[in-house]
Amino acid sequence: MNVQAGAAAPIEFHFDFSSPYAYIASELIDALAEKHGRGVHWQPVLLGAAFKLTGAAPLVQVPLKDAYALRDFTRSARFHCVPLRIPARFPVSTLHAARAFLWFTQQDEMGARQFAQAVFRAYFLDGREIDQIEVVLDLAQSFAQPFDVTRAALAEALQGTVLKNALRDIVDRALSSGVFGVPWFSVDGEPFWGVDRLPQLERWLEQGSF
Amino acid sequence: MNVQAGAAAPIEFHFDFSSPYAYIASELIDALAEKHGRGVHWQPVLLGAAFKLTGAAPLVQVPLKDAYALRDFTRSARFHCVPLRIPARFPVSTLHAARAFLWFTQQDEMGARQFAQAVFRAYFLDGREIDQIEVVLDLAQSFAQPFDVTRAALAEALQGTVLKNALRDIVDRALSSGVFGVPWFSVDGEPFWGVDRLPQLERWLEQGSF
Repeated sequence: MNVQAGAAAPIEFHFDFSSPYAYIASELIDALAEKHGRGVHWQPVLLGAAFKLTGAAPLVQVPLKDAYALRDFTRSARFHCVPLRIPARFPVSTLHAARAFLWFTQQDEMGARQFAQAVFRAYFLDGREIDQIEVVLDLAQSFAQPFDVTRAALAEALQGTVLKNALRDIVDRALSSGVFGVPWFSVDGEPFWGVDRLPQLERWLEQGSF
Repeated sequence: MNVQAGAAAPIEFHFDFSSPYAYIASELIDALAEKHGRGVHWQPVLLGAAFKLTGAAPLVQVPLKDAYALRDFTRSARFHCVPLRIPARFPVSTLHAARAFLWFTQQDEMGARQFAQAVFRAYFLDGREIDQIEVVLDLAQSFAQPFDVTRAALAEALQGTVLKNALRDIVDRALSSGVFGVPWFSVDGEPFWGVDRLPQLERWLEQGSF
């Protein structure tokens, strides 16, 4: 999944754990990339920070768009055969989960990806409150050996400034490079926004520029 | 193109002449509908009126989104094999063109559709100033017999209140039914927003609810 074939650069994949479209994409992107001999570089971004720059708001808070968005979230999930239930509390802050993801990437990139998928599924399948530190620690614990040491270490890291700064830097870099929504993919510098751009992304992988 | 097979209701298709995505859709929707034994009911809407309700703005006026949008317009057109050049003046008012379209529908629905395609192509292929009444009249003239009578009649109608009220009513109805963007499709009450939703629309036509 994380193997790069030859010299082909990985697909850059930006996500926010609170986006249903990013969740759908997170269930599809690794297989699609692998089919074309690419790896995937998963990176968290905070939609709230992007919205401040673009003046956007969560879809479910926008008049007219709210009802359509709820319908489109679930229909798009069915279209892609990805199980999804919109949580009762939606959207929520993904600050702790994003920082925890970065902490995992410092240990083990594959473990970090499994953690990300666990967070997405906990939120969009089980409706768990992924904005809560305790829930994030519970999810992290599933991937950690020995459990107690890792839980304590992550809990401490989530209180510190290192992870806070690391997430702020990665979000700033994403915004500076033009990322304003999720899921966001970049293939050899070509940007694609939205799970609905996967067909264009796939054609790009097949043909290069079209 | 406008034939309905059996009792299947036509696809409702809302467009604004200033939207590149609506232009791309306008080149695809009739053939897609025909393949599934459906007609298409073309209806103009004014994005500006929708934006007032949703707080949205033209994509090329939104920080970060502007550069991506210009890239995505042309890449999406190439993806769908629809020739497109973003006009120097973009977007523009489509008030006169939309009223003229309604005037044509009162005469002949097929003629109205040909007029709509002529307006879209004049704007997105030839960069003509479709916000100008004289350009709208020039385009209308191509479809009219005898030319002089129609040009004069349309010019007069564009000054009157009947067409203004008709467009206001059709836009109000669209907004009331939840339309907030274009292209907008509705199949048996199921709404689809965006040319990128054509694959979902097609599955709906094939299977019904999914």
